[in-house]
Amino acid sequence: MKKPTRPIWINEKDNSIINVIDQRYLPHRVDVFDLKTKEDVIFAIQTMVVRGAPLIGVTGAYGVYLSLLTAKDEKELISDANDIKNARPTAINLIWAVDEVLKAISDINDFDKKKDEALKRAKEIEAFEVECSRSIGEFGAKIIKEISEKKGGKPVNILTHCNAGFLATVEYGTATAPMYIADEQGTDIHIWVDETRPLNQGARLTAWELGEKNIKHSVITDNTGGHLMQHNMVDMVIVGTDRTTHTGDVANKIGTYLKALAAKDNNIPFYVALPSSTFDWEVKDGVNGIPIEERDGDEIKFVTGFDEKKIREVLITPLKSKTVNYAFDVTPARLVTGFITERGVCRATEKDILNLFPEKKKR
Amino acid sequence: MKKPTRPIWINEKDNSIINVIDQRYLPHRVDVFDLKTKEDVIFAIQTMVVRGAPLIGVTGAYGVYLSLLTAKDEKELISDANDIKNARPTAINLIWAVDEVLKAISDINDFDKKKDEALKRAKEIEAFEVECSRSIGEFGAKIIKEISEKKGGKPVNILTHCNAGFLATVEYGTATAPMYIADEQGTDIHIWVDETRPLNQGARLTAWELGEKNIKHSVITDNTGGHLMQHNMVDMVIVGTDRTTHTGDVANKIGTYLKALAAKDNNIPFYVALPSSTFDWEVKDGVNGIPIEERDGDEIKFVTGFDEKKIREVLITPLKSKTVNYAFDVTPARLVTGFITERGVCRATEKDILNLFPEKKKR
Repeated sequence: MKKPTRPIWINEKDNSIINVIDQRYLPHRVDVFDLKTKEDVIFAIQTMVVRGAPLIGVTGAYGVYLSLLTAKDEKELISDANDIKNARPTAINLIWAVDEVLKAISDINDFDKKKDEALKRAKEIEAFEVECSRSIGEFGAKIIKEISEKKGGKPVNILTHCNAGFLATVEYGTATAPMYIADEQGTDIHIWVDETRPLNQGARLTAWELGEKNIKHSVITDNTGGHLMQHNMVDMVIVGTDRTTHTGDVANKIGTYLKALAAKDNNIPFYVALPSSTFDWEVKDGVNGIPIEERDGDEIKFVTGFDEKKIREVLITPLKSKTVNYAFDVTPARLVTGFITERGVCRATEKDILNLFPEKKKR
Repeated sequence: MKKPTRPIWINEKDNSIINVIDQRYLPHRVDVFDLKTKEDVIFAIQTMVVRGAPLIGVTGAYGVYLSLLTAKDEKELISDANDIKNARPTAINLIWAVDEVLKAISDINDFDKKKDEALKRAKEIEAFEVECSRSIGEFGAKIIKEISEKKGGKPVNILTHCNAGFLATVEYGTATAPMYIADEQGTDIHIWVDETRPLNQGARLTAWELGEKNIKHSVITDNTGGHLMQHNMVDMVIVGTDRTTHTGDVANKIGTYLKALAAKDNNIPFYVALPSSTFDWEVKDGVNGIPIEERDGDEIKFVTGFDEKKIREVLITPLKSKTVNYAFDVTPARLVTGFITERGVCRATEKDILNLFPEKKKR
């Protein structure tokens, strides 16, 4: 097997199979997972074989294509598409990407032609995400460069939470895109990687990515960021998001809100990097309006790691203790310095967001 | 072996041995560890066989007694005592307790008499800690009861970080003392237990303690508290502390500061429970004046848990990634609602603290 350079691709020998890196076993093992049916797609999204808003979107888009390989009629197609959209209620990109493919094929009656068109549109969405990431990276790298210049070239310390890296998108990532581009441009950076309990996407995935790209980084517990910020060891925060309201409230991996509070308290810029597809143009109040997924408590009770050549799940709590596992939280706009989007950087206000996306202004 | 009811006791058959529960393997195994020498004491403190400010103090006090069993002269005794004090630089109780024993024996020349007196003083310090905890519990339970009455008897949701339970003291604990007394008094409570990475003292120890006492609790990741507070699922926070300045700045397990920020942001009372021995009467600026211990990064890299009948350490990061492990942070006084001490409750200002401890006022 060739070493995958992207987290998703069409199987080279059989284009009825979509391949993804199985992210559950990184960094200990790089496995490839086959998506052949809509059920595979839902399983992959729900069990975090694939994760990250843009990648979930792209996977959902290919999911519509896979559904067309077996669906008997329009009714089944729509039902499949709805099932895919419901696999991850927080992920606005998923809904967007699935709907984009449905829109592209809605006027076509022939199912074979629908299939070709769906594949084409899914590929376009994938290409669009890459373009978005590159663009986000370039806008973000400018901010990093400015900080670097203020520091006289000393390493810029960037804190990030969870994994909004190329594993979460297709290339570059969202939160990591500015880091990768800054590194390409020769800016000296060092990344503080929040381990991101319970699933340790930071410790497992972001650390792995940064290591693959030879970028200096240190993994820290999710508890540590506040202390680092109090002691001038963080120059900026960049995180991704699963859904951001057009008023600027940011749903992201649980714990993001705590980092935003600490950044505010220490006057450290807190940026959110996102493609425009992650904006929610309907919900106004993020804290009360965005549904927060509650996941299986066993994700807290058992930690996955590597020991004696085997990936193991070890119990860390008393067996009889209850665990409660909310997957996301919402950071209010007032704590966000700015959004780094593929169109540029804007402040976290409805007005500034709509100025960047004027086509979304309601007449 | 009888089931231990305290984390420290004098060996019943041989009073030259101090026994402690080995807290490294809880909740999966309840092992007893022998302290026979000053080296054992330092090892136990540094590797967290014993932990928690009051218990570390009591252990240090018995450490002076153990040193007297072998020390050849006054010089060796003082050198041993200094080594013990340096085992945990953040722990003000340790310094206090060791100095208390040294003071009690300083006028005695005969080493046998010194030994007896040191043992007596160490036992007194132990008894004092129990008394303190009980008293802290009673003052804290009053606050819980008031909240319970406001809620019409619905469960009071209390969030705590790390373990400031009976395992960290001798009985009752500090942060948990109000919970245990409230429970004894029949107040309905539910505890949110932060797992407290990297060593999981919450998931392992606090959850175990609460389970042993049949108190309702849910283990959550350290990332979760902010979300719960945003959604009215936390009525109050109670944490312990390793050192608190007389100006009200609180050094406690890393991550405490983040919870204090979230409590402030959501107008939720944030209390710190502590015996007066934990106050630092010298340092004025906690954030800049309290030394913060940096521990081995492997504590982050490897998670200890239970699998296939064995306690294992599993690797959770890429092997080559660096990890940085600060053990404590400092919560500024402005974020603290009040201190629950053995003398009563006071606000987190120098004036209010000194009013409660007038003997500490400088003339």
